Amino acid sequence: MIKEELIQGIAAGDRRILSKAITLAESTIEQKRNLALEIITHFGPQDNTLRIGITGTPGAGKSTFIDAIGINLLQQDTNRKIAVLSVDPSSGITQGSILGDKTRMNKLSAHNRAYIRPTAAGTQLGGLAKNTRLAMLLCEAAGYNTILIESVGVGQGETEVAQLTDFFTLVLNPGGGDELQGIKRGIMEMADIIVINKADGDAEKQAKLTAKEYSMALHLFPSAGGFEGDIQKWIPKVITTSATENKGIDVYWEKVGEFDKLTVANLSKAKNRQIQKYYWARKSLQDLLFAKLGNYEAEIAKDLAEGKLPEVAARDILRNIE
Amino acid sequence: MIKEELIQGIAAGDRRILSKAITLAESTIEQKRNLALEIITHFGPQDNTLRIGITGTPGAGKSTFIDAIGINLLQQDTNRKIAVLSVDPSSGITQGSILGDKTRMNKLSAHNRAYIRPTAAGTQLGGLAKNTRLAMLLCEAAGYNTILIESVGVGQGETEVAQLTDFFTLVLNPGGGDELQGIKRGIMEMADIIVINKADGDAEKQAKLTAKEYSMALHLFPSAGGFEGDIQKWIPKVITTSATENKGIDVYWEKVGEFDKLTVANLSKAKNRQIQKYYWARKSLQDLLFAKLGNYEAEIAKDLAEGKLPEVAARDILRNIE
Repeated sequence: MIKEELIQGIAAGDRRILSKAITLAESTIEQKRNLALEIITHFGPQDNTLRIGITGTPGAGKSTFIDAIGINLLQQDTNRKIAVLSVDPSSGITQGSILGDKTRMNKLSAHNRAYIRPTAAGTQLGGLAKNTRLAMLLCEAAGYNTILIESVGVGQGETEVAQLTDFFTLVLNPGGGDELQGIKRGIMEMADIIVINKADGDAEKQAKLTAKEYSMALHLFPSAGGFEGDIQKWIPKVITTSATENKGIDVYWEKVGEFDKLTVANLSKAKNRQIQKYYWARKSLQDLLFAKLGNYEAEIAKDLAEGKLPEVAARDILRNIE
Repeated sequence: MIKEELIQGIAAGDRRILSKAITLAESTIEQKRNLALEIITHFGPQDNTLRIGITGTPGAGKSTFIDAIGINLLQQDTNRKIAVLSVDPSSGITQGSILGDKTRMNKLSAHNRAYIRPTAAGTQLGGLAKNTRLAMLLCEAAGYNTILIESVGVGQGETEVAQLTDFFTLVLNPGGGDELQGIKRGIMEMADIIVINKADGDAEKQAKLTAKEYSMALHLFPSAGGFEGDIQKWIPKVITTSATENKGIDVYWEKVGEFDKLTVANLSKAKNRQIQKYYWARKSLQDLLFAKLGNYEAEIAKDLAEGKLPEVAARDILRNIE
């Protein structure tokens, strides 16, 4: 398919062509990837979109939550188009959990203003978030003004999802800390909102108690508002929801709306996206440089096993390829 | 000075020669740096040392705290030798705050089993923690079995200090959150112990209250103990101290002792150091690769200002140097 056809298809909101373009962006063949970059460049920056990261422990009901908030927003506002992109490093080749997630988003996947796409892991280590970024930009080019990026709260690339989004959502169980062991350190302090989901039936009381505890705890943490220069920072919120009973979903969007209003007004949304661009330029440069080294991980493992200092191992690996 | 002299001097615990070797490690001249690497390699790994990171907001009394805990340990145990290494990216060329810190460590700097050394910022961005690592290894080679790495809780390289150490200490004021705005997100969740310092006079009651609040808050965070596979993880502690009145300093070392005992027994100390070696090998490789690119930061800034995608900017920068 030639460039013009792809551009026309995306401009017309053709999902089949959008999917083709995303597949190009995920390709390890440079020519295909470059074509995807040209298409994104053609459409230019989409500054008025909303990019939301959603993470949480397995079992916290992330997919049901996304299904509920997605449908709610589409019903509230007919100008909204939602793209859901999944990042799941644990899915590997079978992509079991991603397909499982997709089928759990029943309502959203049937809606004509929603587009759901898992990110292919490909063969590149750390390539997931990078591919998701290009998929996001293509979705925005196709008119999706609200991007939900779903990821599991574990694994290497997790903190990178925050480098993709404007607003970071952490979905937790009402348990109050017991289920957090698998989660990556530092994620909690990145959250702009903590959602205690499954606040229904017997668990509702427990959920409200957990929310109160987190709310108090967050005041003791560096993320808790204040000023950065003259800019009033966002104070992270804690809410309870029941995705299955559709409770608290309105409140979630209220908070997102407040955040967006604040960060557009104080310019921190634009500033943050600019910082992210620098991050991805450096990151891309790093990936391209490392790609030239071949299987350097095996070399590192061998050198360290032989007792070499890490600094010496690095120097020698670089010498060998020169 | 030739290699053999340096090795003999370090083996004999000669501080003047240790300082010379550290200056070699900090050098941007490859030959000098390689000499330092050869010396470290000669002495081999020092697995029985204790590496402690100490960070906190300016004004939390870090230096006074280090002076107090250092002297306490040296008096408790005549087999201890302590090296204090300071990492302060904000100090720049004048190194004002580092020299200030050093003079605040009155007792320790006069002790014959203590060695205090600020890390030179040099000209390399992100080179601070890297240089500190080599300084640490040289100190260990010279018989310093307890390394205290002091850093400010702000700035780019901060999270890297955790990649240098076995045990991470966060020193805070009794204020209870108000002074945390400058601190980097995610640091709190990295702490193995939070020390509420300046628990003296009128502030003692407030300090104990703050400690209680943090103690409860930490239970809700991912760092709060549990198991990783079969390994019982450390549960972060919160204590109050008064460095000026020498209160709670014994308790600090009790907790460090418990941590060391647990992590030696369950092998997580050794495992963590192994993971850190991989980190530093990759990091060194990355730094060496980027060093070949010249002023790539200026190129990135120019390309992004022109509206290039970050991914395209990276590709073009690499093409230009090939």
